[in-house]
Amino acid sequence: MAKKITPRSKDYSRWYTDVIQRAELADYSPVKGCMVVRPYGYALWENIRDGLDRRFKATGHVNAYFPLFIPMSFLQKEAEHVEGFSPELAVVTYGGGKKLEEPLVVRPTSETIIGHMYAQWIQSYRDLPILINQWANVVRWEMRTRLFLRTTEFLWQEGHTAHATYEEAQEETLRMLNVYADFAENDAAIPVIKGRKSESEKFAGADTSYTIEAMMGDKRALQAGTSHNLGQNFAKAFDIKYLDRNNELQYCWTTSWGVSWRILGAVIMVHGDDQGLILPPKLAPFQVVIVPIWRNEDEKAQVLKATEKVKATLAGVRVKVDDREEYSPGWKFNEWEMRGVPLRIEIGPRDVAQDQVVLARRDVAGREGKSVAPMMALAQRVPQMLTTIQTDMLDRARQYQKANTFQPATYEELKTAVVNGFALAYWCGDAECEDKVKDETKATIRCIPLDQGGVGPGRCVVCGKEATERAVFARAY
Amino acid sequence: MAKKITPRSKDYSRWYTDVIQRAELADYSPVKGCMVVRPYGYALWENIRDGLDRRFKATGHVNAYFPLFIPMSFLQKEAEHVEGFSPELAVVTYGGGKKLEEPLVVRPTSETIIGHMYAQWIQSYRDLPILINQWANVVRWEMRTRLFLRTTEFLWQEGHTAHATYEEAQEETLRMLNVYADFAENDAAIPVIKGRKSESEKFAGADTSYTIEAMMGDKRALQAGTSHNLGQNFAKAFDIKYLDRNNELQYCWTTSWGVSWRILGAVIMVHGDDQGLILPPKLAPFQVVIVPIWRNEDEKAQVLKATEKVKATLAGVRVKVDDREEYSPGWKFNEWEMRGVPLRIEIGPRDVAQDQVVLARRDVAGREGKSVAPMMALAQRVPQMLTTIQTDMLDRARQYQKANTFQPATYEELKTAVVNGFALAYWCGDAECEDKVKDETKATIRCIPLDQGGVGPGRCVVCGKEATERAVFARAY
Repeated sequence: MAKKITPRSKDYSRWYTDVIQRAELADYSPVKGCMVVRPYGYALWENIRDGLDRRFKATGHVNAYFPLFIPMSFLQKEAEHVEGFSPELAVVTYGGGKKLEEPLVVRPTSETIIGHMYAQWIQSYRDLPILINQWANVVRWEMRTRLFLRTTEFLWQEGHTAHATYEEAQEETLRMLNVYADFAENDAAIPVIKGRKSESEKFAGADTSYTIEAMMGDKRALQAGTSHNLGQNFAKAFDIKYLDRNNELQYCWTTSWGVSWRILGAVIMVHGDDQGLILPPKLAPFQVVIVPIWRNEDEKAQVLKATEKVKATLAGVRVKVDDREEYSPGWKFNEWEMRGVPLRIEIGPRDVAQDQVVLARRDVAGREGKSVAPMMALAQRVPQMLTTIQTDMLDRARQYQKANTFQPATYEELKTAVVNGFALAYWCGDAECEDKVKDETKATIRCIPLDQGGVGPGRCVVCGKEATERAVFARAY
Repeated sequence: MAKKITPRSKDYSRWYTDVIQRAELADYSPVKGCMVVRPYGYALWENIRDGLDRRFKATGHVNAYFPLFIPMSFLQKEAEHVEGFSPELAVVTYGGGKKLEEPLVVRPTSETIIGHMYAQWIQSYRDLPILINQWANVVRWEMRTRLFLRTTEFLWQEGHTAHATYEEAQEETLRMLNVYADFAENDAAIPVIKGRKSESEKFAGADTSYTIEAMMGDKRALQAGTSHNLGQNFAKAFDIKYLDRNNELQYCWTTSWGVSWRILGAVIMVHGDDQGLILPPKLAPFQVVIVPIWRNEDEKAQVLKATEKVKATLAGVRVKVDDREEYSPGWKFNEWEMRGVPLRIEIGPRDVAQDQVVLARRDVAGREGKSVAPMMALAQRVPQMLTTIQTDMLDRARQYQKANTFQPATYEELKTAVVNGFALAYWCGDAECEDKVKDETKATIRCIPLDQGGVGPGRCVVCGKEATERAVFARAY
């Protein structure tokens, strides 16, 4: 606990790791590439999961569970898919003491096994659409790992849907992209750019991939969720067919979409500061921490009584009371600031005498973030303040993203722009131009935004050829 | 959907499988030994999970997540543990296209990897107790599998706690056994016998294992949850030590406890009948199904309007409205009975005219289960009836268990008893007597009940030697 957090300006990457370890969100494990999510981090993940799950159910989806193991032959049925995932597979070759006849892959994603089941469950148009989501662990062998952002095993959700028409599949693909954006902005307070992936960046096996991209505190981009229109690629590979209203056999149109615990890394990087985490109230395991302050037994009794009273008025708020004897109030302030609790309530003997408390916002440093409130007002005031904090955090992140997004007109300007943030620039659609930028600047095309801002055609920032769309170029996690 | 459910009396095992498949709880998968949990089954599992999770949190536990993969060497650190689990392991030997230096085991349970982490997290008595639970998938290679009851991969929760003293560990072990029993009886309506496992039946690596045992509809036993006092076995194997108040290094005392989706199999077998599932209201994905009935468009409009009104009065109840046009009311009655929905509400034109509905309980067949209620009364009546159904289901299962539990005094009586149900009989504690019963009758000692019913010592039902305790002998799943 003595370990200090490295300042962001000194080493952003170390700051990130320090915060995670100091706040006990996660820890390294003895298994290469795998991490342990500690209780505080898991509580945060549970809130992320619940926020997403609620939205999935509200849009008609149901949860199910498919096997962890996938026969190797299944992956090989979709050519692009197996090519994309082969280098990342973990393979089980022994089971129950015997060598397996066919090796089993630990799922890197479940399009194949789910496609196999859909082929059996779907007979006619009456069975469509199928709208299933799965919360699961998946494994992708990674060489360079980073807590939450890139780990060999990770937790995620993967939605898999089957539809009668291309239009319905496309509608679903965009619906879920919007669900992700809604969650990111309203629960995680992370502004995102919704867009299409370029051909070279799309999911292995998809017709079109969509993404939400967010700007981290170091101005790099992070892909926070993806939604794929898989066309009929998997339907053809797995023979997912239905009898239409004219009694003719048709291939289904399928989609898949996923968000992983990676988004927890985004929450850390978008909001955190040199003191540690700043958690948006909707996701914070504890929304409020109450720190009672006393110097003697008399005061202690009074203050703890008031603390209980205050806690009781905050029904529906996730409150932590830190009445530990072995730590000083100052130590506790630092501790809970580091752990990102949105709002602190201080109750000392003077406060009790005046029927008031001191409130301190985590997201606004120093005096400016402090206020005094009558105890009677807290039942209203605290939820209001949490709402304000939530909104302010989103606004601040939005301003940061805006301030660090540039619109370079020339290749030279682009090169400078991607060092300092996002570059929104015309792109002709040619992979050669995309590769050139990547090779020379390390920036990739994060997406072609769905909202092009109402501008007309222009000239590709790389080759100068005519371009109808603008893309976001950035260095990414 | 045309497939009929085999009657229980004809073939109990096929009845079980038929019910699961017809009700779309689960399906076989193309991966040997693994199953697919379909949305209806998963919704049931989510309610089981939530009921348990709520209880874990209320008793001070927090969730976390540990890696799926465990280095083979970890398992070998605890001698009994590796011996017990070796035959059941799935082993990853390739990762990222390369052969691994040390094979990784897909977790069959997580005492070892969690023990390794606890050794790093625990320094002093101030860090104790650690009360962590994990919801996860685990893999145990099974030769003969059965849906939910015995599958190669299964979902479960595993609690792992570390304490300063034996007493605290023992208290925790029994606390969680009681939590399981409370869940089984109050949520799943399954009466259970709490007891200690015999030496030969205990968890590989435990000092003492406790279990809750339930009687299925075919009078066989099913172990529905276990709680283990691990003594200092894993603490010594993984060097989990703490500095006590005297600044002396001590080994911790650890426990582990788990419930899997196996308990879902118990819900099916304890309550189901030849028509299909009967689900306890607290776990049912839909507690009420409303079937509107009409013959023409006029009636349809009226009836659907009333249906909406009824649904709106049932806030807080999980209601499904089945207004599909392509199925008849009779078909729907059968369908939702088969799927075990506790209460059906029928609304026809006459009911609308009289501001009433027909209620039909799933757990009471025929006229006896039917009643009529004014629409105005439903907001009160429906929750009351659900409570009554829940209680009646537990009572019925309790009576069934009681009626089929025998107290044989002789070995001959024991042999008859275990064919017809549970046998509660004196046992001297000798493994030889236990083995003899197992070999000759296929019945095992399910547990030595914690509640011995206040009887004194007696004579071992097998060898006639003095015995201080009675054990439950039964054939088991």
